[in-house]
Amino acid sequence: MAGQEVKLLGAWFSPFVHRVEWVLKLKGIQYEFVEEDLTNKSPLLVNYNPVHKRVPVLVHHGNPIAESLVIIEYIDDTWKQNPIMPQDPYERARARFWAKFVEEKFTEVIRGTIMLEGEQQEKEVKQAREALDVLEGELKGKKFFGGDTIGFLDIVLGWIAIWLGVIEEIACIKVFDSNKYPFIGKWMENFAELPVVKENLPARDKLVLYFHKIRQFGLASAVKK
Amino acid sequence: MAGQEVKLLGAWFSPFVHRVEWVLKLKGIQYEFVEEDLTNKSPLLVNYNPVHKRVPVLVHHGNPIAESLVIIEYIDDTWKQNPIMPQDPYERARARFWAKFVEEKFTEVIRGTIMLEGEQQEKEVKQAREALDVLEGELKGKKFFGGDTIGFLDIVLGWIAIWLGVIEEIACIKVFDSNKYPFIGKWMENFAELPVVKENLPARDKLVLYFHKIRQFGLASAVKK
Repeated sequence: MAGQEVKLLGAWFSPFVHRVEWVLKLKGIQYEFVEEDLTNKSPLLVNYNPVHKRVPVLVHHGNPIAESLVIIEYIDDTWKQNPIMPQDPYERARARFWAKFVEEKFTEVIRGTIMLEGEQQEKEVKQAREALDVLEGELKGKKFFGGDTIGFLDIVLGWIAIWLGVIEEIACIKVFDSNKYPFIGKWMENFAELPVVKENLPARDKLVLYFHKIRQFGLASAVKK
Repeated sequence: MAGQEVKLLGAWFSPFVHRVEWVLKLKGIQYEFVEEDLTNKSPLLVNYNPVHKRVPVLVHHGNPIAESLVIIEYIDDTWKQNPIMPQDPYERARARFWAKFVEEKFTEVIRGTIMLEGEQQEKEVKQAREALDVLEGELKGKKFFGGDTIGFLDIVLGWIAIWLGVIEEIACIKVFDSNKYPFIGKWMENFAELPVVKENLPARDKLVLYFHKIRQFGLASAVKK
């Protein structure tokens, strides 16, 4: 069975897991989804990703691969239909450069704001906005970062279409402004309307509840230190 | 002229620049090296890498590429001789996974120790040692991470063969221990003996002086805050 060849260890609330699912679905690859309880990690997860013990993990014919960007490149290398990476080596290098930029200067920064308050949080919000300034310039008038169809960078940044608003709400911050970032605003709409995205997003209210708990727990731990 | 087709904007003391040079030399690619003064960045650097304004930047037929790991994959995609990345998609994914691990859990951590003292520094040293524990297990009895010849992960970790000792000296820390990491110790020797590495390393005493200044300046700035 095709479903047994490809297994994805994931968690419903994780944007990193959703990235991988978007690519699997875009390519029409059948897979079995295994929901992990990260408060009580399964021996399967610990065995397949002993270094980080994190989701997502893709298991293909028994071979595990961790780290969402690494998984996406693996899928694109292995199943050639609907390519995610540009075919030209220079454009491929540019896609990797921008993906690294998004991860370091935006994704990790926004993730950090969940556990912060006050001045420290403001500093991170400012840094995240500076990253958006740069990305707005990079997107310019294009429909997607990949051009007319979505590519690697769209997949990597795609989480903002729903998770960013959730994190803004629970962390009481404002990062995105559609007047300041009209191209990214339009891009977010286009991205969220893609069938593979639209049909597979977690419910917003469930996400809010989940991340709210994460923040409460994180702030409580920080106070205890 | 071949030298005009490929240009490398670099700095003599940078391990990230040396990574790229090792790959260019391994593949026998002729290039022009442009030494950048990072205290007074050239318009060329700012123009070619406006986002980070950092070296290395590889310029191929006028097209600039930044970030050492992205550059290395570009070179390997473009010049096929003496491949750096494994040819098998699963092995390629593993190489990328480990490269990310080295960068996040070791390279950035060691870089951080230069500017730290006391308890904060000790915490980073502990984390770096934990990463070496994992890498020692991954290397096992192999000559190189890539097997019998060097590959992507060897290039990414190769800087430790000389820079780690220098940073240990100037930051007054001890991370590496050849009794605890016999495989990595032997690997460091093998790596440093490769002709493309041996013939192109900066002088150790010059590196010590340079990083000593960096540390003094960094600690002085921290005190002023």
